[in-house]
Amino acid sequence: MSFEWDTHAAVERTSADTFSAVLDGGWSVGGGINGGYQMGVLGTAVSHSLPQHPDPFVLSAYFLSAATAGPAEVQVTPLRPGRTSSTVRAELRQDGEVRLTALATFGDLASLPTDDVRVTAAPPELAPREQCVPGSMAPEEVRRLAPLMERFEMLFDPSCIGWAVGEPSGVGRFTAWFRLADGRDPDPVTLLMVLDALPPVTFDLGRPGWAPTVELTAHVRAVPAPGWLRITHATRNVGGGMFEEDCEVWDSADRLVAQSRQLAKLPR
Amino acid sequence: MSFEWDTHAAVERTSADTFSAVLDGGWSVGGGINGGYQMGVLGTAVSHSLPQHPDPFVLSAYFLSAATAGPAEVQVTPLRPGRTSSTVRAELRQDGEVRLTALATFGDLASLPTDDVRVTAAPPELAPREQCVPGSMAPEEVRRLAPLMERFEMLFDPSCIGWAVGEPSGVGRFTAWFRLADGRDPDPVTLLMVLDALPPVTFDLGRPGWAPTVELTAHVRAVPAPGWLRITHATRNVGGGMFEEDCEVWDSADRLVAQSRQLAKLPR
Repeated sequence: MSFEWDTHAAVERTSADTFSAVLDGGWSVGGGINGGYQMGVLGTAVSHSLPQHPDPFVLSAYFLSAATAGPAEVQVTPLRPGRTSSTVRAELRQDGEVRLTALATFGDLASLPTDDVRVTAAPPELAPREQCVPGSMAPEEVRRLAPLMERFEMLFDPSCIGWAVGEPSGVGRFTAWFRLADGRDPDPVTLLMVLDALPPVTFDLGRPGWAPTVELTAHVRAVPAPGWLRITHATRNVGGGMFEEDCEVWDSADRLVAQSRQLAKLPR
Repeated sequence: MSFEWDTHAAVERTSADTFSAVLDGGWSVGGGINGGYQMGVLGTAVSHSLPQHPDPFVLSAYFLSAATAGPAEVQVTPLRPGRTSSTVRAELRQDGEVRLTALATFGDLASLPTDDVRVTAAPPELAPREQCVPGSMAPEEVRRLAPLMERFEMLFDPSCIGWAVGEPSGVGRFTAWFRLADGRDPDPVTLLMVLDALPPVTFDLGRPGWAPTVELTAHVRAVPAPGWLRITHATRNVGGGMFEEDCEVWDSADRLVAQSRQLAKLPR
């Protein structure tokens, strides 16, 4: 495995139900480790524990404490083995403390029928890549706070990048092109990370800063086609110190391959 | 407690972390017990176990086996007690078998700030109640299959009731007025049930029949105002034998009080 993502999300089986991993500091943001990356590591362990059902269908992650760079353990507890899918509980721990607890149903996406696809959602309207604004143009101090921005190429549509120059649109919506910096094509487990890779959509509402995820549920619906992904983040319900954030990931074949909804705390 | 819902969702504490309940056959549909009702019973137990944090903020339910009318037990396992919210795991069991396993974060909705509400979602356009079609007009055989329809008044917008006469709109969207048959006003835990009360939106796609929920995550965002609720069910991503279904619940004060997304299997 020569790709950065494979190395960084790698797990090693240490017993029937436990896996060891090393959380890579390159995925930190604002001093913590990105939640999507944590889901990717946890999802890799679940995938290895279920050889017949290697792909996430749905995964619900609750973030209990802040993860740091360094050793971690994933414990997978089977709850319902099934013929077409399996449901498990999984926990990511560091120093005996649970960072992330999850419930998940995994299966084999390649085995699903393909003749019944009926998507009324529309792919995001996104300017051609050469007209978009790369994350690498972010100011030096932003990139120092968010080393994970070096892990991927993220090209923002010009219509939703006003926040970077102090002029947020106020709409509560981001769209961007996305691919891993190492050129590796996405697979289903990788999409767990992709669903939480963009900055919080509250930046677009003029509320920059860290927006801690309370819970994130990811649906992965198809094996993504190789190539660039398109991502949309949007919120429609802000209030009570929290907001809901919906993410959609579209592949190069125009399929809505993953969706997520999270409940997060508004930046202070 | 004189309301039907309170009686049917009642739980009794049997130890520090366990509660007994009796699942009421009046909430069955197609031979099983409605998933939303199960979430309501489980949510009632979690609420009783967390006196400082009685309201669901977010709850993710995975349905492992079909529940039946009769005795059940709910076990609540604290995962992270907090100042403003608490995260728990909870399981609903019958005869030692897990019917429903859940992760949830509960808190106190009444304590949240109310000056930061910024909702860009729009309430459903719904005909006045006297122009809507009540669920009680469903044919006798449908009502026999779905006794739970007697538990609430559900008034469907005329635009999305074609499926009942063999002319589904094909849009994949339902809107309806809703209130409990016993006249009781909704509270936050009750909303867990409301989010799964409408028929599967696949009826509107010309695919009637049982659509088993794999997973449902509910966000409850505010204490609902008394009176009628308005509910929307919609799907935007059907394929691979599954579909995503989003539900929104609006209260009489025009607040989006609850949202859910579920992954369900298409009816065969």
